[in-house]
Amino acid sequence: MLVGTTHPGNIGAVARAMKTMGLKRLSLVDPKRFPCAEATARAAGADDVLYEAQVFDTLPKALENCHWVVGTSARIRSLQWPELTPRECAGKAVAIAGHGSENADDQVALVFGREHSGLTNEELDHCHAVVRIPTAADYRSLNLASAVQIVTYELRTALTSTEQKPNPTGEDASDRINASDWEGFYQHLEIALQDIGYYDPAKPKRLMRRLRRLFHRAEPDRAELNILRGILSAAQKTARDDSGENSAAR
Amino acid sequence: MLVGTTHPGNIGAVARAMKTMGLKRLSLVDPKRFPCAEATARAAGADDVLYEAQVFDTLPKALENCHWVVGTSARIRSLQWPELTPRECAGKAVAIAGHGSENADDQVALVFGREHSGLTNEELDHCHAVVRIPTAADYRSLNLASAVQIVTYELRTALTSTEQKPNPTGEDASDRINASDWEGFYQHLEIALQDIGYYDPAKPKRLMRRLRRLFHRAEPDRAELNILRGILSAAQKTARDDSGENSAAR
Repeated sequence: MLVGTTHPGNIGAVARAMKTMGLKRLSLVDPKRFPCAEATARAAGADDVLYEAQVFDTLPKALENCHWVVGTSARIRSLQWPELTPRECAGKAVAIAGHGSENADDQVALVFGREHSGLTNEELDHCHAVVRIPTAADYRSLNLASAVQIVTYELRTALTSTEQKPNPTGEDASDRINASDWEGFYQHLEIALQDIGYYDPAKPKRLMRRLRRLFHRAEPDRAELNILRGILSAAQKTARDDSGENSAAR
Repeated sequence: MLVGTTHPGNIGAVARAMKTMGLKRLSLVDPKRFPCAEATARAAGADDVLYEAQVFDTLPKALENCHWVVGTSARIRSLQWPELTPRECAGKAVAIAGHGSENADDQVALVFGREHSGLTNEELDHCHAVVRIPTAADYRSLNLASAVQIVTYELRTALTSTEQKPNPTGEDASDRINASDWEGFYQHLEIALQDIGYYDPAKPKRLMRRLRRLFHRAEPDRAELNILRGILSAAQKTARDDSGENSAAR
């Protein structure tokens, strides 16, 4: 998944990089120019990946139905997300999507940002983890398609090197929570924190970002998310009884 | 080391790929056009690698002083050389060049062939082993710079993996939470859940066990644990105001 790509040639090069590693589902969020002859030229024989690429206005729309979302970042950010190497990311992605499956990209989204500025913090808020590709300290200028090449190479290596292993957590796919479950939870959390007087949305969003990171790291299943939402509802009920409010929305 | 490269743009992209991974010694054997403005443009900030590149007429001349020579091949050849994955190659290259050294390219040569036809069998005769980058069976068209990117990425990973990794979250030891911090949190959580009417300690303890597992997985640091306790206190305050209780213990 590419966000805000400026140069169409890079989109083509990414399609080629993906296809050599056996991946074919490309999503584009707000590309500057697409479709474009330059993209097709650079894709070489991978133009089928371009033709089937889906284009979205916003990242949240592109992420619907994704279970695990990984952003990429070259920068070292002050407020850090759980950070993975490409290899760790690949191992985890394959475990989540199911061993031996080539459809890792059905459920796992790898999100690559703009050529110069990467992903915004708001975009990273949708990610459960961040991959950072190790580079030389004095020259971090990794080309977009090269970054995709490295991550997809690790994915392919992880897919082909592991034998069929039982799912370590034994969880059922239906237990997994997707992006819209997460957003529902965070909206609930934000309102509940206001109800108990802990959070003021007029103040900066740093608190919500920290909580997102924290809960993403915990990787709750559906039953656990339901417990958390039950706790939020109980806290809200107390707060409502207290203040005499009676908002049906809550 | 690039042999018989046709497109100067690829030479520039290779320089960039190498430099991001901390490698700077590029040798060119019989390049079709070099130096060339297109190479410099594609090198981005890695033009120093191009300026310092050495150009040779033949592969044997370029390989003088090299201890271990590895060719690359996408084809599956009938007469096979010892075949390595990029990862195996990187491990061996680092072992030969000496751990912790960034000068693996002083003694180890990685030889990449022509864009379309690769290396000839005569050229492979000079190699001690061959690296084959795993690709999808139906599309092996790996770009030259992408191939270099993958192999140099593995080299960098092999070089840095033995070194002490910096703490990824940059956290200080004093930020880590210990067993008594955890117990304080869980006691607080249990009381708060009773206060908001969500938890009845007369019933089995399964809920608390699930929550323990969930929060342990999140691996919060001290600041995050303080946020969680702040939320619990806010919920308790709402509950206390509601019920008119005034327990000093809370």
